[in-house]
Amino acid sequence: MTQSHSEHFRYKMVVAYDGTQYGGWQVQQSRVSIQSLIEQTLFTILQTPTSLSGSGRTDAGVHALAQVAHFTTQQPINPAKTLLSLNALLPGDIRIMHLESTSPTFHARFSALAKTYHYRLHLDPIPDPFKRHYAYHVQHPVDLTQLQDAASHFVGTHDFSSFANSASRGSAANDAVRTLHRLDVILEPGGARLEFEGNGFLYKMVRNIVGTLLDICANKIARDALPHILKAKDRRLAGRAAPPHGLHLIAVRYDK
Amino acid sequence: MTQSHSEHFRYKMVVAYDGTQYGGWQVQQSRVSIQSLIEQTLFTILQTPTSLSGSGRTDAGVHALAQVAHFTTQQPINPAKTLLSLNALLPGDIRIMHLESTSPTFHARFSALAKTYHYRLHLDPIPDPFKRHYAYHVQHPVDLTQLQDAASHFVGTHDFSSFANSASRGSAANDAVRTLHRLDVILEPGGARLEFEGNGFLYKMVRNIVGTLLDICANKIARDALPHILKAKDRRLAGRAAPPHGLHLIAVRYDK
Repeated sequence: MTQSHSEHFRYKMVVAYDGTQYGGWQVQQSRVSIQSLIEQTLFTILQTPTSLSGSGRTDAGVHALAQVAHFTTQQPINPAKTLLSLNALLPGDIRIMHLESTSPTFHARFSALAKTYHYRLHLDPIPDPFKRHYAYHVQHPVDLTQLQDAASHFVGTHDFSSFANSASRGSAANDAVRTLHRLDVILEPGGARLEFEGNGFLYKMVRNIVGTLLDICANKIARDALPHILKAKDRRLAGRAAPPHGLHLIAVRYDK
Repeated sequence: MTQSHSEHFRYKMVVAYDGTQYGGWQVQQSRVSIQSLIEQTLFTILQTPTSLSGSGRTDAGVHALAQVAHFTTQQPINPAKTLLSLNALLPGDIRIMHLESTSPTFHARFSALAKTYHYRLHLDPIPDPFKRHYAYHVQHPVDLTQLQDAASHFVGTHDFSSFANSASRGSAANDAVRTLHRLDVILEPGGARLEFEGNGFLYKMVRNIVGTLLDICANKIARDALPHILKAKDRRLAGRAAPPHGLHLIAVRYDK
């Protein structure tokens, strides 16, 4: 009559959020985190403490169209009803877009095969008030052809240590090897977005790459220095991190 | 040696604003108004009280891509420098997009020939967190063909009394005659926008028309009742006002 420990039920959720008001996916800067707010709401609905595992952290101010997370319950739940309850209780800047039963072996972080991030640049001389929380307004001229040309250096499999902040440090050197499948510069009204797709991203990697590309456009870093900066595995050689509010987690891909 | 009273300098500005945080263009609901905030900032820069006249009011929560306003000074100013100073001092959700010297006879309201408003509808089942302040999330199904069909009744010259709230009442009946040049329903991702272009709009007219059109789609108002409602000149026969946050003032047209 003993119940097996392996008998539990796992659910996968897709979450969209406007990160402007939050301290990030996980707690940062002693502000409310999106993860903890959803955990509290799950507790209210399921009447039992439930922890949520995301595909990865997003910093304060970073947005997500489709963050993925999983949680486990001892009793089966009705995903459709739970989704409605979550959205009824959560604030309007966090929406559960999808909730489904999944395999007990599914893990939002470890099962992820690839992620897509967009970084939005706003390049008009006068900043659009509607983009102020969603795109980085760059004051200096940006040559988008030069940007795309420099961006192409990052595509492929590299040790990205020079573009990782300290949360990823202290680990073995080959931990910093990632494959960037593509980095495209796409024109959009008033600016451009940089589309990153890769098998994984180190802490602040997207923002550090964008900041470095912009430093190249501003002639603060030499155009041909990128191969050397990558090879050096030294964060100090790369540029500043671009601010968080231009960054959007667009998709996390898993095996079907 | 007496100075003529007519010797003054007039300037025309184009203002974009995210209306979410404000009590409207003019003071409403004892919250800060956009007009008064720009007037205060002009006072700081020009060191003399300066009143600003807009092309018309926008309610609390309504947005503008290109509101137009004018002000008058006793001394000429440098528009390019004043624009930079205004944008340096104003909050990021209000931006002066353009500032130029204009004729002393120009009047932002009385010289206006036509205005364009967009009303944005968000029709996805789960509301997008990024649209929550900029589009009205409609819970019931909306048949966009039916919406466009009903919208066509409003195009042309009509007495719009049935679609005007009390701020426009008490005036002579023919004051409520306006010409709507077009009312188009344009599909956009996750919904649609209603594009209104007309020679003038009564108080809450756009929101009352949108609310009535949605009530028709929800079968709360009969599909064929619109000609009767227009003819009756009775606000009580039309539908509710759609909420302010879906409304955007897009352009004000003047003679060249």
